[in-house]
Amino acid sequence: MPADKELLYNDYKATMRKIADVKYATAVLQWDQETYLPPKGAHFRGQQLATLSEIAHNMFTNEKLGKLLNELISKDLDAKQKKNVQLSLEEYNKLIRFSSDFVRKMSEITSASFHAWLEARKQNNFSVFEPALSALVGLKREEANILGYDAHPYNALINEFEKGATVAMADKIFADVTKPLLILLDEVKQKPFAEDRFLHQTFPKQQQWEWGIYLAKQLGFDFEAGRQDISEHPFTINFSSQDVRITTRIDEDDFKNMTWSTIHEVGHALYEQSLPADEYGLPSGEYASLSIHESQSRIWENCIGRGHEFWQFYFPKLQQYFPHQFNDVSVQQFMQAINKVQPSLIRTDADELTYHFHVMIRYELEKNLMEGSLQVKDIPVYWNEQYKNLLGVDVPDDKQGCLQDVHWSHGSFGYFPTYSLGSFYAAQFWEKAQSEIPELSSKIALQGDTGLLLHWLRSSIHIRGKYYSSEELCTLVTGKQLDSKVFVDYLRQKLNYL
Amino acid sequence: MPADKELLYNDYKATMRKIADVKYATAVLQWDQETYLPPKGAHFRGQQLATLSEIAHNMFTNEKLGKLLNELISKDLDAKQKKNVQLSLEEYNKLIRFSSDFVRKMSEITSASFHAWLEARKQNNFSVFEPALSALVGLKREEANILGYDAHPYNALINEFEKGATVAMADKIFADVTKPLLILLDEVKQKPFAEDRFLHQTFPKQQQWEWGIYLAKQLGFDFEAGRQDISEHPFTINFSSQDVRITTRIDEDDFKNMTWSTIHEVGHALYEQSLPADEYGLPSGEYASLSIHESQSRIWENCIGRGHEFWQFYFPKLQQYFPHQFNDVSVQQFMQAINKVQPSLIRTDADELTYHFHVMIRYELEKNLMEGSLQVKDIPVYWNEQYKNLLGVDVPDDKQGCLQDVHWSHGSFGYFPTYSLGSFYAAQFWEKAQSEIPELSSKIALQGDTGLLLHWLRSSIHIRGKYYSSEELCTLVTGKQLDSKVFVDYLRQKLNYL
Repeated sequence: MPADKELLYNDYKATMRKIADVKYATAVLQWDQETYLPPKGAHFRGQQLATLSEIAHNMFTNEKLGKLLNELISKDLDAKQKKNVQLSLEEYNKLIRFSSDFVRKMSEITSASFHAWLEARKQNNFSVFEPALSALVGLKREEANILGYDAHPYNALINEFEKGATVAMADKIFADVTKPLLILLDEVKQKPFAEDRFLHQTFPKQQQWEWGIYLAKQLGFDFEAGRQDISEHPFTINFSSQDVRITTRIDEDDFKNMTWSTIHEVGHALYEQSLPADEYGLPSGEYASLSIHESQSRIWENCIGRGHEFWQFYFPKLQQYFPHQFNDVSVQQFMQAINKVQPSLIRTDADELTYHFHVMIRYELEKNLMEGSLQVKDIPVYWNEQYKNLLGVDVPDDKQGCLQDVHWSHGSFGYFPTYSLGSFYAAQFWEKAQSEIPELSSKIALQGDTGLLLHWLRSSIHIRGKYYSSEELCTLVTGKQLDSKVFVDYLRQKLNYL
Repeated sequence: MPADKELLYNDYKATMRKIADVKYATAVLQWDQETYLPPKGAHFRGQQLATLSEIAHNMFTNEKLGKLLNELISKDLDAKQKKNVQLSLEEYNKLIRFSSDFVRKMSEITSASFHAWLEARKQNNFSVFEPALSALVGLKREEANILGYDAHPYNALINEFEKGATVAMADKIFADVTKPLLILLDEVKQKPFAEDRFLHQTFPKQQQWEWGIYLAKQLGFDFEAGRQDISEHPFTINFSSQDVRITTRIDEDDFKNMTWSTIHEVGHALYEQSLPADEYGLPSGEYASLSIHESQSRIWENCIGRGHEFWQFYFPKLQQYFPHQFNDVSVQQFMQAINKVQPSLIRTDADELTYHFHVMIRYELEKNLMEGSLQVKDIPVYWNEQYKNLLGVDVPDDKQGCLQDVHWSHGSFGYFPTYSLGSFYAAQFWEKAQSEIPELSSKIALQGDTGLLLHWLRSSIHIRGKYYSSEELCTLVTGKQLDSKVFVDYLRQKLNYL
């Protein structure tokens, strides 16, 4: 009878909400760990995080919830309710494979790894990170075994970040895109070298900070429902759709760092801030997938934030913030500089083209680590070789090499491929948005108003939560499956325009 | 057999550690709520805090822990272990009286009250706070009934903050001290009026901030194991002895506000940072009582931070930070100004003498609220009358009146009396420290070195955790019971010296 069904569903919602409370509390402790935690606090913080992870795990794997989900799945629910229960049941069936001891251990080891990574960066020495990372890699292999996999242990891990993704699929996507990107890179090399020295003058911290806050506001980030802080590695984290935190880092010698990392994180944050608050704790209140999340950051960072429409309006504003640095620069010179294609050392500073080579190197490295053909201790040598081979650059030290990303210290193996997928999805969404909103470009160029895009993304993607998988969503929104050619064409057109 | 005993005790320690993890996680969320939380995040934050409170409560009231504690209490443990188990069992027997629903409700209502208080302050209107406060007062009365009490419902609540304290006892202490304080106030009034206008020049935020950080460091606050931030109401909170956070507020027109609130909070923090880290989660790793905690903040704020020895060394430093504001001021003028006795509106800005009248007003008000002879809606009128009667000042608005303290919005009824007790304990510890360390004054005056006092407080009080009650500790350390005459004598001597 309907009353019983509603009662059960409400029980499910209340349980999920409490689990979310614990998970988001964990996220607050993680945010604090990366922004404000004093160094001596690290040990007990690791312990506190481990306890919260264990509690959330125990709440989710409670037999009562399992019984409830199995009962609900057979009821006549509406489509959204059914999808929620189905996704929660999937998660339940996955999580019950893990003991709470394993979850606790994973949390403790990742906390320790994070602090080891910070210390290793400080000392610019991978060997400081190595013991913690080795322990973590061992645990991740154990995780792959617990999850089970076909064909390749790495499948289990990438599937954690992108449901349904496999090594075979990622291999194909990267193979497909490599050749066109190399051709495009050759084309670019024929053109005159873009001058970008003016991006490397001195840009005082406080002014950069204010410029970043201004940009975030202009793009629609709601500071009543979020904030920005400083961290070693920029990230977005949320504790509800009403409290979304972004971080940035500021390099006084490099204008690009803060500006595009801010736009990137704002892209993530606009997605989180647009998720339906009344679905808090339910799949329908969560983002679709990591690659779709990344598509949101990329569409803002690249399609908008490196586009000529945007800077047509915002370059004069930028000149007001940094008159000394930019008054002698034209918007054309600026566009050429910020879109300059040049193989480099740091992924987050890379141009839109060579970026994907950075991802590929990490993808192959992780694959090798997981199958055991590469040892943790050999990472720096492997890394430096691959950077020489694929990007043609010499890695001078670990900080600019294999210590540059925070991801492994978080236990995030299988995460990097979602960055490339995100760029490819972004290009496809951008193509569609432009065709559906004819006035989009002129609104941006003439008024600096990106609200039409945000509105379109909200109604096409954000409010749909986790109802559709990445592929379903892509087809639904753009009318076709993911096709990296759209990305290559977008990029060629943009680079030719410069 | 001993092995069994050790096993049980270790089980107890591990359980307590996990409960502490959840409590400290809750504290992180509270800290964030008062420092960085964006306004729209308040609703879900309240929910998250409520869930964590409920979880901690369920962990502590788990029958397994009760059984374990009851078993351990009969074992042949060493004195510290026995005391730990005894205190935990007391806490267990208290907490099992509360349902987890009650705990959740209390947490939700206090979160809502805190935000209502912030909003009421913004609007400078008590009636904005009234509905939330009424709900909270109702719940606190319910709490008193659940806890049970003799004689007066307020007894149950003050006992929560100061074990063993009663209305009868507090009435007597306040009665004892009122007359001597009024006499002293009369004596002061005979003297010429101290000039303190130079404390109300413009003191830029950033310079005050730096001065505060400098002071905190000089006093021994370990910034590797803590930090300072800004909040509406200064407070100290800790997530382990290795992560102790203080907050301050900065008023550009008032030099006193930030400086002495910083010294005050540093006093609290030095206590927390000195608690034994390896006793994390156990009573032996916790502070003795709130009044003893307050004695630590007061000894630093008043005995040190308003003392002539301190400023003999630090006044020239202060002049370096604020040359424009203080170069024409002598250290004598400064001492007179910062110790100026004058009835005023704001408790935290009050001088050492009239401070206790502020406390007494709140104490009587809470007592009346709890016995039902005062209604929440009548608080502003009652408040303003009492300030007129006892302090002779006219309260111009709610913000400078009954909305000035955060405590009620936290559900802290019965907390204020510990402030006066703390001052009285502080004077007694200060007297003893001076007699035991003859070189203390000269070290401070000539080198600005307060390390001898910190060392003495650590070994006499801090490292003892919760082993002794306030009264036991006072007798053990000073050789006599709490006697407010010591405080009055200390104050008379100081005011005569000016």
